Amino acid sequence: MAPGYARDVSLPADLPVSFRPATRADLERVVALIADDAVAAARTGAFGPAHVAGFEAIEASPNDELVVAVLDGEVVGCMQLTFVPGISRNGATRLLVEAVRVDARLRGRGVGRALMEHAHARGRERGCALAQLTSDKQRPDAHAFYRRLGYAQSHEGFKLAL
Amino acid sequence: MAPGYARDVSLPADLPVSFRPATRADLERVVALIADDAVAAARTGAFGPAHVAGFEAIEASPNDELVVAVLDGEVVGCMQLTFVPGISRNGATRLLVEAVRVDARLRGRGVGRALMEHAHARGRERGCALAQLTSDKQRPDAHAFYRRLGYAQSHEGFKLAL
Repeated sequence: MAPGYARDVSLPADLPVSFRPATRADLERVVALIADDAVAAARTGAFGPAHVAGFEAIEASPNDELVVAVLDGEVVGCMQLTFVPGISRNGATRLLVEAVRVDARLRGRGVGRALMEHAHARGRERGCALAQLTSDKQRPDAHAFYRRLGYAQSHEGFKLAL
Repeated sequence: MAPGYARDVSLPADLPVSFRPATRADLERVVALIADDAVAAARTGAFGPAHVAGFEAIEASPNDELVVAVLDGEVVGCMQLTFVPGISRNGATRLLVEAVRVDARLRGRGVGRALMEHAHARGRERGCALAQLTSDKQRPDAHAFYRRLGYAQSHEGFKLAL
């Protein structure tokens, strides 16, 4: 986890959301946000030691950040950022974005866009030339959201259980 | 970069390929392998300082490995592995595979499969529950290759220049 940071974003004007690194105290709420989704619910169980271990591994990594969106003191969104060094694309560092979630009560109000803009700002701060993410083929609304943000839907995404 | 490792693989029997972490001396060859591809050539220029900086960032990261495949003392393939801790999927660590390349003279002879099996073995050693990668929509042969390895083509992949 990088040093703490906070950046106030006012997108949209009526929802003064801010962003900060997640703390251990946020974790149960983050797990609930991740699981509150028809696609993800089947693969993320109730909060438990495995989530704590994952959080501790993120904290220990110099290249990973778990970010929460906060509104009126409440966590209303989350995402995980990984900064991936590399050789291809002229030695570009990539920003990998995973586990993007917004509280169901706030969807469609610009919180997700603000969250992604924060992700891109963090990526630029870390020297990333490229942002990348995958989205389950069962999420056409998410695909449209990323296209509206300017993403090219240029790749096929593959997963294998190990 | 994790501590050095080497694991001899005899897939296929007539090509005794082995795998090891890339060294700085391999880097120019790795860049040439990455660029020897119709899709990637346009975005990876001639070997230069940006590639060296990318290599050094991989070396400095505890969660990234650049791997080369070696045959008769010659580098004939490469890939980059990133171990990504996380909260979703019950706190699973993910193995991210990027920049998979095999020398054009050896394609179709099992080197790519052996490389991916090595990737999965390294992922399991690092506690990864899931492997993931994206492949440009212009690479249908690569998609068939990953499906044959057991990958689910379950996601859409998005990229954005920062």
